Amino acid sequence: MRHCRIIGLTLGFLGLALTAQGQAYHQYVDPMIGSEGLGRVFIGPSYPFGMVKPGPDCTSSPNSGWLAEPVPVTGFAQVHVSGTGGGPKYGNILLMPFSGALDKLDQAAHRESEDVALGYYRAVLVPSRIKVEITASHKVSFYRLTYPAKQAKALKIDAGFFLGEQPVPDAREAQQFVGSEIEVVSDTEIRGYSRIRGGWNNGGAYTVYFAAVFDAPVADFSTWKGTKLFPGQRAQVDSGEKTGALLHFKDGGPDSVKVKVGISFLSTAKARENIGAEIPGWDFGPVLGRLRSRWNALLGRVELDKTTPPDQQKLFYTSLYHTMLMPVNRTDENPLWTSAQPYYDDFYAIWDTFRSSNPLITLLAPKQEAEIVNSLINIYQHDGYLPDARSGNANGRTQGGSNAEVLIADAFVKKLPGIDYVQGLAAMLKDATVPPGGNEEQEGRGGLPEYNRLGYVPHGVPRAGNRTLDYAYDDFCIATVAKGQGQDAVYQRFRRQASNWQNLWRDGYRNHGATGFIMPRDAAGKWLDSIPYGTSNIQKPRFVYTPLMREYPWYVCHWCGFFYEATSWEYSLSVPHQVPVVIAKSGGNAAFQARLDTLFEKRYYNVANEPSFLTPSLYHWIGRPDLSSRRIRRIIADNFNTTHFGLPGNDDSGAMSSWLAFQLLGLYPNAGQSYYLLNAPLVRQSVLHQEGGKDFTITARNFSPTNVYITAARLNGKPFKQAWIEHRDIVRGGELVLEMGAQPSTWGTTILPPDGSKL
Amino acid sequence: MRHCRIIGLTLGFLGLALTAQGQAYHQYVDPMIGSEGLGRVFIGPSYPFGMVKPGPDCTSSPNSGWLAEPVPVTGFAQVHVSGTGGGPKYGNILLMPFSGALDKLDQAAHRESEDVALGYYRAVLVPSRIKVEITASHKVSFYRLTYPAKQAKALKIDAGFFLGEQPVPDAREAQQFVGSEIEVVSDTEIRGYSRIRGGWNNGGAYTVYFAAVFDAPVADFSTWKGTKLFPGQRAQVDSGEKTGALLHFKDGGPDSVKVKVGISFLSTAKARENIGAEIPGWDFGPVLGRLRSRWNALLGRVELDKTTPPDQQKLFYTSLYHTMLMPVNRTDENPLWTSAQPYYDDFYAIWDTFRSSNPLITLLAPKQEAEIVNSLINIYQHDGYLPDARSGNANGRTQGGSNAEVLIADAFVKKLPGIDYVQGLAAMLKDATVPPGGNEEQEGRGGLPEYNRLGYVPHGVPRAGNRTLDYAYDDFCIATVAKGQGQDAVYQRFRRQASNWQNLWRDGYRNHGATGFIMPRDAAGKWLDSIPYGTSNIQKPRFVYTPLMREYPWYVCHWCGFFYEATSWEYSLSVPHQVPVVIAKSGGNAAFQARLDTLFEKRYYNVANEPSFLTPSLYHWIGRPDLSSRRIRRIIADNFNTTHFGLPGNDDSGAMSSWLAFQLLGLYPNAGQSYYLLNAPLVRQSVLHQEGGKDFTITARNFSPTNVYITAARLNGKPFKQAWIEHRDIVRGGELVLEMGAQPSTWGTTILPPDGSKL
Repeated sequence: MRHCRIIGLTLGFLGLALTAQGQAYHQYVDPMIGSEGLGRVFIGPSYPFGMVKPGPDCTSSPNSGWLAEPVPVTGFAQVHVSGTGGGPKYGNILLMPFSGALDKLDQAAHRESEDVALGYYRAVLVPSRIKVEITASHKVSFYRLTYPAKQAKALKIDAGFFLGEQPVPDAREAQQFVGSEIEVVSDTEIRGYSRIRGGWNNGGAYTVYFAAVFDAPVADFSTWKGTKLFPGQRAQVDSGEKTGALLHFKDGGPDSVKVKVGISFLSTAKARENIGAEIPGWDFGPVLGRLRSRWNALLGRVELDKTTPPDQQKLFYTSLYHTMLMPVNRTDENPLWTSAQPYYDDFYAIWDTFRSSNPLITLLAPKQEAEIVNSLINIYQHDGYLPDARSGNANGRTQGGSNAEVLIADAFVKKLPGIDYVQGLAAMLKDATVPPGGNEEQEGRGGLPEYNRLGYVPHGVPRAGNRTLDYAYDDFCIATVAKGQGQDAVYQRFRRQASNWQNLWRDGYRNHGATGFIMPRDAAGKWLDSIPYGTSNIQKPRFVYTPLMREYPWYVCHWCGFFYEATSWEYSLSVPHQVPVVIAKSGGNAAFQARLDTLFEKRYYNVANEPSFLTPSLYHWIGRPDLSSRRIRRIIADNFNTTHFGLPGNDDSGAMSSWLAFQLLGLYPNAGQSYYLLNAPLVRQSVLHQEGGKDFTITARNFSPTNVYITAARLNGKPFKQAWIEHRDIVRGGELVLEMGAQPSTWGTTILPPDGSKL
Repeated sequence: MRHCRIIGLTLGFLGLALTAQGQAYHQYVDPMIGSEGLGRVFIGPSYPFGMVKPGPDCTSSPNSGWLAEPVPVTGFAQVHVSGTGGGPKYGNILLMPFSGALDKLDQAAHRESEDVALGYYRAVLVPSRIKVEITASHKVSFYRLTYPAKQAKALKIDAGFFLGEQPVPDAREAQQFVGSEIEVVSDTEIRGYSRIRGGWNNGGAYTVYFAAVFDAPVADFSTWKGTKLFPGQRAQVDSGEKTGALLHFKDGGPDSVKVKVGISFLSTAKARENIGAEIPGWDFGPVLGRLRSRWNALLGRVELDKTTPPDQQKLFYTSLYHTMLMPVNRTDENPLWTSAQPYYDDFYAIWDTFRSSNPLITLLAPKQEAEIVNSLINIYQHDGYLPDARSGNANGRTQGGSNAEVLIADAFVKKLPGIDYVQGLAAMLKDATVPPGGNEEQEGRGGLPEYNRLGYVPHGVPRAGNRTLDYAYDDFCIATVAKGQGQDAVYQRFRRQASNWQNLWRDGYRNHGATGFIMPRDAAGKWLDSIPYGTSNIQKPRFVYTPLMREYPWYVCHWCGFFYEATSWEYSLSVPHQVPVVIAKSGGNAAFQARLDTLFEKRYYNVANEPSFLTPSLYHWIGRPDLSSRRIRRIIADNFNTTHFGLPGNDDSGAMSSWLAFQLLGLYPNAGQSYYLLNAPLVRQSVLHQEGGKDFTITARNFSPTNVYITAARLNGKPFKQAWIEHRDIVRGGELVLEMGAQPSTWGTTILPPDGSKL
């Protein structure tokens, strides 16, 4: 709660940060939720989908930059990602104020009074007592550095810094240095760049250009190359070594020095131009105000009932906020090609976000989602494949399927305008028909020849299990779009392939009371109960594979297991298009209910990972939406809260948060399909102020802590008996009234959610 | 001959351009040989393997920039390639002096008195009468612009220009504009860049940075963006539009203005630094002198007998010169990664150069070839695959095989030191085992799964014929290196695969008297006498395939035929590792000799294309080196001369020229194997002053126009009865004396050249 003070302080100059509803929604956003533990969210200021994300970088190189004290801060870099697992990316162009002589590169310091609010970061460095405040526009970071009186006002600008440096050259998922440059252009401006490659997605070199301008003149400076300082030398030219500058601002004048750092992916001149275009002046307040205004316009698309407790509001709006930090809008900053289409980067990864992040953006900001989908199709047209993940202008890595296809199908079934769905289908078909070659982690579908030949990915191809499941779902998405375009041959082929997951479903296989699991199978069709590992030709060791096993990293490498980041208990239920088939293959409704109960109660379910996002809602398909609601409430209560540890797993650029946001509203999407499942909302009323202008209100009547079940519903006054609602019913506006009660009723038990096997 | 005057002029200040032997070999180089017709050689100044290649660009966008009058010149760009076919590449950062007002972008002019010598270009522009002179260092172009007295001294610098622009977006093989920038840094300096993608190899975006400095101050200027001029505006920042500057130098002062244009692939500051490092001063003469000195040191590795007629010397030294223009040494200019290894670009393409260019560099400059091979292995380590072609920092296209493998094998069998052959073998095996995926023209082996499954590339995969032949030879190269490294399993596998070409050899198939041809075959094993084409499902048209057919572009696209750029008559003889097998399958020695005679006499042989480079030497394997010598003489007399039209086909970055250079010496390599075939030299004596310090002399005794046959030979005084010599015998130094006579003898008829099927 310590940042409430800051919110109070900053509200004073924020008249323009209020929405049409007059609400300062930003005050309900706490960027520190999920900052510690597994959440790994970025905590600094950022525009929605903002290109700069300035914030502290702490020496041990966490993915988001920030770590709690007592870890010292190395400085404040301008580009970050949010909520990611695996190796880091970015952390470029590091600023660090200090007070001493210009004689050493390490200026790490401790922090006191660290305060974080939406768009605003503050800390006092120790022992120097320099106060650092940060806000930002879309492409420009804005720093206000307040030095103690009579201290030397010094600043380090490090063009060589990046997150995740490792001593081993070309270590997996580590960023690698390529080059950097720095030039003292005038006594109020420094320019340069940082060129880095690798990192989590193993991308090629990307270059972050910057221009830093000051409102106080530089009195003296020293630039460096490698570890050597060159006092007074204005420029350090790229020779494949790290460069930077230490500088003293002129003594006297105000204690505060303001620094604007423009970023560009094209050139230093463009970075400088971005400053002029976005932050021409020197006042801190209006910059912060504009940022909050942008956010309030988006956050205000959902208006929660005023009686909603602050902590609940904080959970909700922070979730929206997290969802809209990424991908990053880099339109006009694409160094690879020109196009009339927008350009987004930092899809990190679509495997994580397709399930709920993108659907949430579609619901609340459909024009934004159309831009995102158009940028994906544009990437396919120029780079050859849709990304599953992309960062630093390079596709990679694919965790499971080619799930950008789900985004295209989701946009298609929800009728997002302004997208060339013919090109979209072409992009999807590329994934499904042309093997990606050498580096199967980069893009497309690894193991595609085997999948297309056998109908499943056999043992021997990494991640054969979840690849098969993902490809089958992606094929369902292709069939959906092909059907809608009247492409009958394509539709028929991929409709068939959508059932391919069944080729890895081992009928009758029993484990802990459940029947039927996705299990490893070799190319000859043989089920594998044990799997060879290691390199010994004498021992020929094998490990026993079971549905509860995670074989990595003990037996095989992290990315080489049968499933990526989960077990067969979790993945066997991850068939979002053919849930009734899974139910039948599990032995029918009763057996399936028991199976779900076992999953949750024996903790085989992993709240922290995306393959299980839909699982708590599967009770809907056996006519028990009450059980879905109960399960979801339990999961939220046990795993989400407003503390720094408030996210149970990597936020994955908002994936985890978007799941929560949907569930709080009582909606959950089945991405790639046109409906939302209905659950008991955790807020009394929410109004969706939709981009198209029409409001849709969800009202929970008789809302109370004990009335946790929906017992009846009316849509626009008419009885509504199903526990799911079509996207178009929301888009056209209206009101959904849910009657809440303490006991389940027959509501939602008869008209079950759609069965995609009927496509 | 009009450039002889220039040679005379420039020799005056060229004391330092002479070699240890005191020879100004550069005077025998005429860069205009092969400039017209199909040769397409670059005609401007360049260091050996030089990064800048400044020269005129004429409006119709030829690959090398230059065209003869009456085509006007648009300006002088700094980066070019030499001898290439297909779509253009480069043509970046265009300078154009003019004399008028700063009010229009088009300043095209005609040329008079155009003179070209090694390292030197001169023309007088018409009607302005401005004299343009150009020379260069490795990374810096140097211009001397002499304006008529009392004329305005104006200069255009165009950062948006590039060769091969086409109106259709993303047209195949066309370069595409991405961005550009220009800034008037001071009254004597302009910086900027040009960012372009695509072109022949369909590469990603590359950026050519430049800094231009003047020895006269700029009085006024106008920059532009798109087509709009902005008088006095210092910078045009990248917004995806073309930019440039028009400027006036201050009136008065000398009539000549000198301009140095530094180029870099890292940054404008690096481009500026390159100027300081390479050309600190302003004197034109010493810059030209240093360039010639570099060339003379290389050209002087071969000393021809002083009685050699000037035209013969010109043919020879120009051929050496052409061979060493590319690839381009870009060490310290790699924007993609840092490495202790050298970095070369513009492999354009190895399919063209592996046969004779690289072997010629190996013979005369082995350290250079080791650098080239190391850079290839380094590219594999960072980009994932060896290139078959590479330009603008991007792999692509593969014309036939994965022939960088031949370079590695060639270096291995010739024992070039300083190469990690273990990594080299790993790179080769990547090509041979991992399909390249989506874009099969980029790198690796297209159709690899089929090739590895069937033992040949079947009909349906583009270029199935020559891919099969190339892969089989590449597999021979892998077997060679694997055997040398004691990798027995690898050796055995690829030794077998080296015979895969036989799977497309249609035994008994007769055509114009010859028996057995490489012919199309489908995946089921069926030989195809006719091939379906087109898209009509009603007509189902087929074309009849014969060994003389080139089916493209009439029936299929240029890159979609059975063979790339040749017929089965040519390709069926292109099996450099198993010539005796081809002879046997053709019906034995007599039939094979008749087949060769038919090939040449009926003009089925194409002198202009690389697959036939070895073919005139194949008589060696039937014990008739005399016929090889006679054939080669005939080919040279009919196709090569010292005129602008002196090359019979695209020089292909020196491939064509290197074939000629070898044949003039009486040597011809079989790349990837350790020996040279011996033919009657066309010079009386040549001394190879080898890099290792040891001389090797080839002396033709009784040399005369009628004594065209080798009748006997002695190596270091001992009788030498074979018509081929091992590389090691040359490296260790000594003398090969060839007795020449008017009639063939029994020399070379018994000890035949090696049969690679015995590997």
